[in-house]
Amino acid sequence: MILAEPSNPHFAEQIRESFGKQPIMTLIGAELGRVEPGLVEIKLSYRSDLTQQHGSLHAGVVTTIADSACGYAAFSLMSPDSEVMSVEFKVNLLRPANASAFLARAEVIKPGKTLTVVRADVFGISEQNENQLVATMQGTMICLRKTHK
Amino acid sequence: MILAEPSNPHFAEQIRESFGKQPIMTLIGAELGRVEPGLVEIKLSYRSDLTQQHGSLHAGVVTTIADSACGYAAFSLMSPDSEVMSVEFKVNLLRPANASAFLARAEVIKPGKTLTVVRADVFGISEQNENQLVATMQGTMICLRKTHK
Amino acid sequence: MILAEPSNPHFAEQIRESFGKQPIMTLIGAELGRVEPGLVEIKLSYRSDLTQQHGSLHAGVVTTIADSACGYAAFSLMSPDSEVMSVEFKVNLLRPANASAFLARAEVIKPGKTLTVVRADVFGISEQNENQLVATMQGTMICLRKTHK
Amino acid sequence: MILAEPSNPHFAEQIRESFGKQPIMTLIGAELGRVEPGLVEIKLSYRSDLTQQHGSLHAGVVTTIADSACGYAAFSLMSPDSEVMSVEFKVNLLRPANASAFLARAEVIKPGKTLTVVRADVFGISEQNENQLVATMQGTMICLRKTHK
Repeated sequence: MILAEPSNPHFAEQIRESFGKQPIMTLIGAELGRVEPGLVEIKLSYRSDLTQQHGSLHAGVVTTIADSACGYAAFSLMSPDSEVMSVEFKVNLLRPANASAFLARAEVIKPGKTLTVVRADVFGISEQNENQLVATMQGTMICLRKTHK
Repeated sequence: MILAEPSNPHFAEQIRESFGKQPIMTLIGAELGRVEPGLVEIKLSYRSDLTQQHGSLHAGVVTTIADSACGYAAFSLMSPDSEVMSVEFKVNLLRPANASAFLARAEVIKPGKTLTVVRADVFGISEQNENQLVATMQGTMICLRKTHK
Repeated sequence: MILAEPSNPHFAEQIRESFGKQPIMTLIGAELGRVEPGLVEIKLSYRSDLTQQHGSLHAGVVTTIADSACGYAAFSLMSPDSEVMSVEFKVNLLRPANASAFLARAEVIKPGKTLTVVRADVFGISEQNENQLVATMQGTMICLRKTHK
Repeated sequence: MILAEPSNPHFAEQIRESFGKQPIMTLIGAELGRVEPGLVEIKLSYRSDLTQQHGSLHAGVVTTIADSACGYAAFSLMSPDSEVMSVEFKVNLLRPANASAFLARAEVIKPGKTLTVVRADVFGISEQNENQLVATMQGTMICLRKTHK
């Protein structure tokens, strides 16, 4: 489902460059996956220092990769010279986030000049490569015009 | 506003003990603040490795401290032998999270035997000690009976 | 996608009977559509007395059909002798709700013994029978045991 | 708490006029209450035709008054020549909405030139005039410039 033709021909490079500048992604060890018009994936390996008191990935970490995937998915359909910021999101935690790796896949539901509505699913990936949905996010991203200096 | 008398006389120690067992809190440098019936605070100093591409605290990190504060605020009013898990939350990001430190303050809106509804405000604290609301969370926590081994 | 086998063989009749007992559905003129395991649809014709100040369907009316569809979709996978109640929902309004008719389609994302997570899309249906997504809901429903008298 | 001085000196008349043009408010019998900078109330009497299958006010009706109160609270702080639309909202249903009357009170949390974040509490009002919180909404409203014809 391509929701809109990307008007920024360089969206993929710009997303990869921006992702590389997010220190939090380095801290938690997240990696960028697919980057397509209206769809972005972020991968994360399980690490015990990312967990809460029961050994599952903390809901905030799940949210971190889902939110960034949503932001970049929205950005991929924005015009050149845009910046993206999260307005709000809602996350349902569906299962304890116990898996050897996680994948957040964000897809644009409704692109817009100012606001873009995005959804992300976060899957736990087991060693048998079976995916289990651990969380789902519905959120709103805003397009800001980049201010040139 | 005391919403309910705590039925677990040891809630405060148990929250401090549980917080100490959350590796993610150590990773990001979060500290527990006030722990009262229906109210819990978590503090976090700004660190450049917790930021997104514009140098603000990542929304996922803001969510991490808000969610844990909500969970513990809910736990404080649960019966002994409870465990708490996040069902869902919704976060509005109100301003870029730029400050030297942050405080998440969670308060129970409606306690319940199974579900507890909680709100958290996250403030940026400037050097002049003025607080600015950077995000607000509304969420639902569930009480699980601890299974003894 | 069948998410779970329904354990209540009478779910469809019970949903139709319950829908008939919702006075609000009569007031706004809503009708039940498809009723399948994990999926329920509610239809609504445009009426000028359901609108806000700009002539679009009020967001609260959009929410009314989405919420009931979500509740029944969750109920369809619950055990016999269950009652369903809405815990919470989140709605993104994607376009002004201007169409001659509307369809709310709810689908269970994650069934559970106590909590079920559901999503509903609300479409505006034009005379050319083209559907446009006007709103999307993500919500949580709770299963209560029916108390017999 | 006055969050911002209203820049539109006629906000209160404009809200009363707009409210009078919302056919859905007439249909359900809602009335406008307090209208102040950043705060708007809507009142609703219980009516059996507004209920779901258990005799409580339908969550969609609760949402209807909360959403309109939020929209007008946001509008009260917008510049003249603005129109307000709901972007999204999240509602937690805290108790069955059983009372002889209901009051939705919306307050602006964070006004903004484009987006305004608002919260609404919906109270059930008993004959003893005791208020019980039945639902709480957190939402985002957008300011659109009115297009003159």
